[in-house]
Order: sequence, then structure tokens, then C-alpha cells
Amino acid sequence: MKLFSIKPVYAHCDLPCGVYDPAQARIEAESVLAMMQKYDGLDEHNKLRAVLLIEQRTELVKQHLWVLWTDYFKPEHLEKHPDLHEKFWLATKQAGECKHHMDAGVAQKLLDMIDEIAKIFWETKKN
Amino acid sequence: MKLFSIKPVYAHCDLPCGVYDPAQARIEAESVLAMMQKYDGLDEHNKLRAVLLIEQRTELVKQHLWVLWTDYFKPEHLEKHPDLHEKFWLATKQAGECKHHMDAGVAQKLLDMIDEIAKIFWETKKN
Amino acid sequence: MKLFSIKPVYAHCDLPCGVYDPAQARIEAESVLAMMQKYDGLDEHNKLRAVLLIEQRTELVKQHLWVLWTDYFKPEHLEKHPDLHEKFWLATKQAGECKHHMDAGVAQKLLDMIDEIAKIFWETKKN
Amino acid sequence: MKLFSIKPVYAHCDLPCGVYDPAQARIEAESVLAMMQKYDGLDEHNKLRAVLLIEQRTELVKQHLWVLWTDYFKPEHLEKHPDLHEKFWLATKQAGECKHHMDAGVAQKLLDMIDEIAKIFWETKKN
Amino acid sequence: MKLFSIKPVYAHCDLPCGVYDPAQARIEAESVLAMMQKYDGLDEHNKLRAVLLIEQRTELVKQHLWVLWTDYFKPEHLEKHPDLHEKFWLATKQAGECKHHMDAGVAQKLLDMIDEIAKIFWETKKN
Amino acid sequence: MKLFSIKPVYAHCDLPCGVYDPAQARIEAESVLAMMQKYDGLDEHNKLRAVLLIEQRTELVKQHLWVLWTDYFKPEHLEKHPDLHEKFWLATKQAGECKHHMDAGVAQKLLDMIDEIAKIFWETKKN
Repeated sequence: MKLFSIKPVYAHCDLPCGVYDPAQARIEAESVLAMMQKYDGLDEHNKLRAVLLIEQRTELVKQHLWVLWTDYFKPEHLEKHPDLHEKFWLATKQAGECKHHMDAGVAQKLLDMIDEIAKIFWETKKN
Repeated sequence: MKLFSIKPVYAHCDLPCGVYDPAQARIEAESVLAMMQKYDGLDEHNKLRAVLLIEQRTELVKQHLWVLWTDYFKPEHLEKHPDLHEKFWLATKQAGECKHHMDAGVAQKLLDMIDEIAKIFWETKKN
Repeated sequence: MKLFSIKPVYAHCDLPCGVYDPAQARIEAESVLAMMQKYDGLDEHNKLRAVLLIEQRTELVKQHLWVLWTDYFKPEHLEKHPDLHEKFWLATKQAGECKHHMDAGVAQKLLDMIDEIAKIFWETKKN
Repeated sequence: MKLFSIKPVYAHCDLPCGVYDPAQARIEAESVLAMMQKYDGLDEHNKLRAVLLIEQRTELVKQHLWVLWTDYFKPEHLEKHPDLHEKFWLATKQAGECKHHMDAGVAQKLLDMIDEIAKIFWETKKN
Repeated sequence: MKLFSIKPVYAHCDLPCGVYDPAQARIEAESVLAMMQKYDGLDEHNKLRAVLLIEQRTELVKQHLWVLWTDYFKPEHLEKHPDLHEKFWLATKQAGECKHHMDAGVAQKLLDMIDEIAKIFWETKKN
Repeated sequence: MKLFSIKPVYAHCDLPCGVYDPAQARIEAESVLAMMQKYDGLDEHNKLRAVLLIEQRTELVKQHLWVLWTDYFKPEHLEKHPDLHEKFWLATKQAGECKHHMDAGVAQKLLDMIDEIAKIFWETKKN
């Protein structure tokens, strides 16, 4: 079973780097989900650490999504995907929700929202 | 052309999160390579920025590799892959080389070294 | 010459803090503008530092704007100000432009865009 | 109720930027005060987050005050305001106190101390 | 009671700086040990802060050790000290253990492991 | 040639950690000095990196000094060393000078100022 495969990223991009990948946000969000799924089985000390680490990881999710939104997407992408702004706004708000609620459903919803953005991202790469 | 596909990461992992992925180091290294490939075509101002950004990105490569090495890998992995320490040491040193030389070959070698580590990583996930 | 005047901060806020202020983004952007205005008069060593510091300060502008966009603004604000997403997107993109061009006009435009957002922000505080 | 009013920022400044504003420390301190005022009404999970966020915010208060003290103030300001060092020392120590005591009075005293520093700051701007 | 004594730093170093010192990791680890020794005497609020601060400090320990391992040590050092990789790996893993267990013995063991590395470090400086 | 010797750290400390050491500021300042001494021998690419790294290292010097000033020193220390505030203010300003001038003399003066502070620090530890 192959869990992950990294294919080449071609340099269709702007100055000075042009490498973007929604996987960065997703990996952090998976980490949030995993911590929430394990939360009940943790001792008090590690429960406390989970809250702290989820705070950090959700900040990273937001950070990666914001960078993608501002730096990667261009007006022509917005024309094709007019709800892109709303999708990013709601996804970063959902990351904030993960801080308030220790609930794997909330984190799963965040993952789904990132996957929707990733789908659009990879579509723009085809053209 | 599908550039990237994220498959599910299964939670075979320790407290408190267990989500690791060599893609984090790779994405930053791809960014370093892309900047080096574009370097000659940049104006003076952006050449300077490229040096600065490569400095930051290579630090992130090192960071992601160090975390993977210390936090993910276990003694049983070392038994099967006795050169794992050396591979991580040389790969993080190679990231440092990318700071000294504006040379796409140096960055490509870093990517190759990350890919070797990624291969071992995904093998350990099979068991 | 009065450059800016920040209105009172009212304590209408959510969990867990609720204190937001567009002044945070503006102060960093003023710093970017000031550095660009002085750039030509700097020696080589400090010109280089200016590029580096503008890189950092524009990142802080983006950071403060993103937080304001995601964390402060609510759906009811969007209804009243349907171009809010676009304003934030373009303002954070403009902050990125300040990295590419050592041009006070580009930084002044960023300040104007922040001021437009600030105006909306303070309107929402009245209600 | 008007909590604070920030006066205009004049462009009297040094290399390489010269933009300073005590509002940066104050906004973070307001956030600390707001969290302390809300603390009793929070659920356990968010109480924990409040402690964590107050830790971060008070660090930012200290950071902004230290930068102002070292980078903005000059020997001629010290001559006019010989207790300036003491004021900054006590204000940054007070920020530390906010970490130890979940007490809005402690945070309010920090705000008062920042306001005293801000008053001196704006006086130096007049000359 | 003498807890630690740091030997002189000789200026044998590489581009661009060459200054390394295991004291950086040790000071952070001492801080972790001190917090663990005081933990039982703290009130609930400061117990929580201790967990948070130990999380940060152990990260700094790991960071300083990783930098030393990758950036300072050279192949000729490895020849003389073939267990160097293992020592760094176990020491950074031990720093991670300090996050899981509020136990001064765990922190003391970390200090001992850092001291072993420091001993090797200072031996390499003699030659 | 012995550049520096750090005396033992005694565990006289406050909540929640109490471990302070002027060596932290000194190690970063030594790094700044070393980079300045090597500067002329560097190629263009690494000269640029040196400016960037000196910017970061001097920030760390300031950070470590500020923490020491605010968090470690108490009113009774000020009584015995009434020029302590001035010493810290001038030392952190000197760190700022290191950013403006690629001049080993400026960095050496910073080291001397840190050593004066370290001397006072270790005197307070004796009592």
C-alpha cells in the first residue's frame, strides 16, 4: 500500500519561487485531526499539551492557506472560481473553530474544506 | 497532467500527533531549486531577495528533516536502515550548502537526498 | 502634517480576546513607506538592510490583514460590504508588490488600501 | 466609551525606518485585559487557551516596549525624562506579572503604565 | 555547588560565523530541569504555564543540538567519535521525553546527555 | 588564547524557571564579531548573507539582554548598581550599531559591554 507519492512540480510560476502546494496546509490539519482523535485516551498532562499543539498547528493551517490565497491565485483563477475567496475565508475560519472545540468532526470538516481548495488548485495547474 | 495527489495518511503513530510527511521538507527544497533556476533572469533587487528567501527556505528544509529524524524514526527503523543517521546528517548539511552556492545542481542533489529519505520513510509505513 | 488618526477601540468582542485594530497593519506599512522614501539616501550596506527589512515588514502587514479578515469579520459584515474579500485579497497582494518594487508609490497605494479596510472596520464597530 | 485615542504619527525618523508607535504595545495589552475580563465566563478548554494566549500577548507587549526603549529613545529624551528607564523596566516587569496573575487589575495597571510611556513618546514628537 | 562550567571558546571556525557552543542547549535544559523541580510547589495557573514553557524550552534544546550536529561537526569528528550521530539522536529524543513526563530525573538525564556531547565538542576544539 | 570563561550557574531562582545566563547574549555577539572579522574575505554572495545573519544575530543579542534586564534583575540589584539601566540601554543600542556598521571594533565594543553586564550579573549571584 502506497500512502503518498510525490510527483514533480513544474515551474509554472512567478518570481521569485512559484512553488505552492495545498499539502502544506493539509499535513498540519491532519495533525490536528489525529490529536483530536487521540485526545480522550491521553493523560491530563498530554491533554494539556494537545490543546497547546492544536493551537499551533491550526495557526500553521491558516498561514499556509493565506499564503496560497494571496500569493498563488490570480484574477483569472477568480473568474473561473468566483467562490474562491469565500472558500478560503470559511476554511481559515474553520481552522479557528478547531481551537475552540476538541471535536474530530470539526477537524474533519477543515480537511474537507482544504481538499476542496486543493481540487481547485490542481485544476488551475492543468491549464 | 496530475502533478500531485494526496492519499490518506494512516494514524500509525505515537502521542500526541503522529503525522509526519517528508513532503514538508521536499516542498521547501523545490522552492529553493526553483529560485536557483530563475536566479540569472532576476533583476538586482530580486536577486538579493532570492538569497534571503533561499536562506529561509533551507532553514525550513533542515527543520523538517530534523523533526522527522528525531521524532518519527525509532530504534527498529535504525536496525533495518543503519545508514539513516548518515543520510539525515548529509541531507541537512546539503541544505546548508544551498546557502553557500547559487547552483541548481546543489539544490537538485538536496532533493535527491530528501527523496532517498522519503523512500525509507514510506517503507517503514508499510510494516 | 497629520498622517493618520486612529479612532477609539471599543470593547465589543468575542472569545477569547476580541481586540482587533487595523493600526497594526498600518504601522508596519508606514515603516515600509518610510524605508522606501529614504532608500536613495542610504549607503550600500543599509540599502541591503532596507530590502531585508521591507521583506519582513510586508510579511507583518500581510499577517495582520489576514488575521483581521479571517478572525474579526463575520458574515453580517460581508453582507454590508460584499467587496470585503476582494479588498483584503488586493491589499495583501499589494503588500507583496512592495517586495518586488522599491517604489514609494507602491507602498503609498498599500497604505491607501489599508485605510479603506480600516474605514469599513470602524463602521462595523459603530453598530 | 472611548478607551484610547492614538495621535498622528509624524514622519520624524532615523535610518532605516523611524516609524515607532506605542499603540503596538497597547493593542496587545488591551487583548490581555480583555481575556482576563472574560476569563471567568469561559469553559475549561478556553480558559486553558486564555492562559496560553496571555503568555504570547504579554511577550509581544514586552517586545514592543523594549524596541521602543532601545531604538526610539535618544540621550536627549533621557535628559528631559530621567525616569524613562525606570518606567520601561517597571512596565515590562508588569507585563510579566500578567502571566502570573489572572487579574484584570494587573492588566489595567500595565495599560496605565503603557499610557504614561505613550504620553512621553508623543511629547518628544512635538519637539 | 557548581552546576556547570563552560570552557573557553576558541575562534576556529568556518564561513560565515563558526561560533558554536553546547552551552546554548544546556542553558535551556537547565531551565527545563528547574521548572520540573519547582513544579509541585506551583499553583494551578503556574503549573499550566510550566507545561507550556517546558514545551518551548525543550524545542530550543532540540534546535540548538540539531544545529550543532549538522553545522559544526565534520566527517573527521565522526571518525574519531563514531557514536556521535547516536548521541545526538538520543539526546534530542530525550528532550522530547521531557515534554511527556514532568519528572526531574528525565530532565537530569537530558543534561547528562548534553554534557557528554559538550565533552566531545570541546575535545574537537583542542585539535 | 582564552576568549571567555563562564562561571557556574547557581540555582537561585524564581518562578517558573529562574535560569538566566549572560552567555546567551555573548555567544550571539561572538558570532557577530566573527562574521565581521571574516567579512572582507568572503565572496559577494556570502557577504550578502553575512549582512543578513548579523541582522538576525544582533536581534538575538538584544532579545537576550532585554530578558535579562526585565526578568532577572530586581530593585535590590538596582540599588547596588544604579547604572544598570543605562548599561543595558547602551548595550542594546550598541547591538543596533552592529547592524549599521560592518566594523569589528563596533562588535568588540558590544562584547565588552556584555561582559560588564555579565560581571554585575555574577556579582549578584554571589549574595
